[in-house]
Amino acid sequence: MMKKAVILLSGGLDSTTCLAYAKSQGFQCYALSFSYGQKHNVELDVAKKIAEHFAVEKHQIVSLSIGDFGGSALTDKSLDIPDYEDNGEIPVTYVPARNTIMLSIALGFAEAINANSIFMGASAIDYSGYPDCRPEYFEAFRKLASLATKVGVEGSPITIETPLINLSKAETIELGHSLGVDYSMTISCYRATADGLACGTCDSCVFRKKGFSGAGLQDQTKYIGSVII
Amino acid sequence: MMKKAVILLSGGLDSTTCLAYAKSQGFQCYALSFSYGQKHNVELDVAKKIAEHFAVEKHQIVSLSIGDFGGSALTDKSLDIPDYEDNGEIPVTYVPARNTIMLSIALGFAEAINANSIFMGASAIDYSGYPDCRPEYFEAFRKLASLATKVGVEGSPITIETPLINLSKAETIELGHSLGVDYSMTISCYRATADGLACGTCDSCVFRKKGFSGAGLQDQTKYIGSVII
Repeated sequence: MMKKAVILLSGGLDSTTCLAYAKSQGFQCYALSFSYGQKHNVELDVAKKIAEHFAVEKHQIVSLSIGDFGGSALTDKSLDIPDYEDNGEIPVTYVPARNTIMLSIALGFAEAINANSIFMGASAIDYSGYPDCRPEYFEAFRKLASLATKVGVEGSPITIETPLINLSKAETIELGHSLGVDYSMTISCYRATADGLACGTCDSCVFRKKGFSGAGLQDQTKYIGSVII
Repeated sequence: MMKKAVILLSGGLDSTTCLAYAKSQGFQCYALSFSYGQKHNVELDVAKKIAEHFAVEKHQIVSLSIGDFGGSALTDKSLDIPDYEDNGEIPVTYVPARNTIMLSIALGFAEAINANSIFMGASAIDYSGYPDCRPEYFEAFRKLASLATKVGVEGSPITIETPLINLSKAETIELGHSLGVDYSMTISCYRATADGLACGTCDSCVFRKKGFSGAGLQDQTKYIGSVII
């Protein structure tokens, strides 16, 4: 029987690479996306197309009203999404406990469908300093997952796979490129318009640009205000 | 400034005792309930009344579509809720990763409102053997919470309080009784009808009966088919 995996899919560069990687490892893939009140919810349409493109077994979209809590520029209309700043601080785009919430729901989904693994495209190299992207965070979640679930108690815990955790953005893009990922399908920008145009200056855009430049590859991202010929 | 706490409130005996306890400890209380596809969703109306009764600062109800995953008799229409069986097995009422999902969302809520603590009325004494009710599970979640959040990284992790973890159901009821809890407001039954009648034979009903009997107190729960004079 094929191994099953749940892949957290935002429609961005990292999660799409992760999906391609899980497929290449022989997993039957179940994509999981979240409608959580993010301003850049065009990513859900993008995620749908990517899930279809990779012919996943199922694409589950979970709605949850955590955007109502506020406290993050990604969900709170009263807070502007800032441009990238290299100052070592956790930016206001941090969504309280977001990865924990997403991984927990992935854990419930994985156990309900008898999946062996959860894949998440987090990286602790070219990233915004979010606490829930660090290797020690994932170690703690692995421990929790083994104690939290019936399958864990029975000796077959669901594994938490973070294949990109130590890769730079350039290395992630090289990995995806070698797996045939078409990055023109993906979108990274926190300020993405409904038409899928990117701002070019938020954290996510800056890391993406740096990645393509480092990998020596061309990015097809279309930016707001750029001339389309 | 008053300390703030998020209290996971299902409308049952344990979570209501927990809310009363948090109030007695001087916390400003924010109740959090979930609409997750549970069959016994009458508990949400009950939770609303209890939250009002205790004059919480806010009662946040989060909708999340994890019931769609199936795999639990509490959410899956194709599975019957069983009567209590004392056989040492985890019953089919187990909802995959439910407490992890609820605690994670509570963690996000708590961080967004600058709360110090999360209270959950879990017990590992008179319980159904769910893995995510055991002390070692909560220890792992505490570790995770300290690594997952911005406040945790900054040295003030949100604490996870489980004041009932080592109490029998009778001791919980005694605690609540001493705090003036009116248990006639609460509902425990997994098969609760829309009118709030209980079945008397599911796990939750059996533990409740045992608790009141052990505490030597009268329970006002109304059972299906019982004669109301």
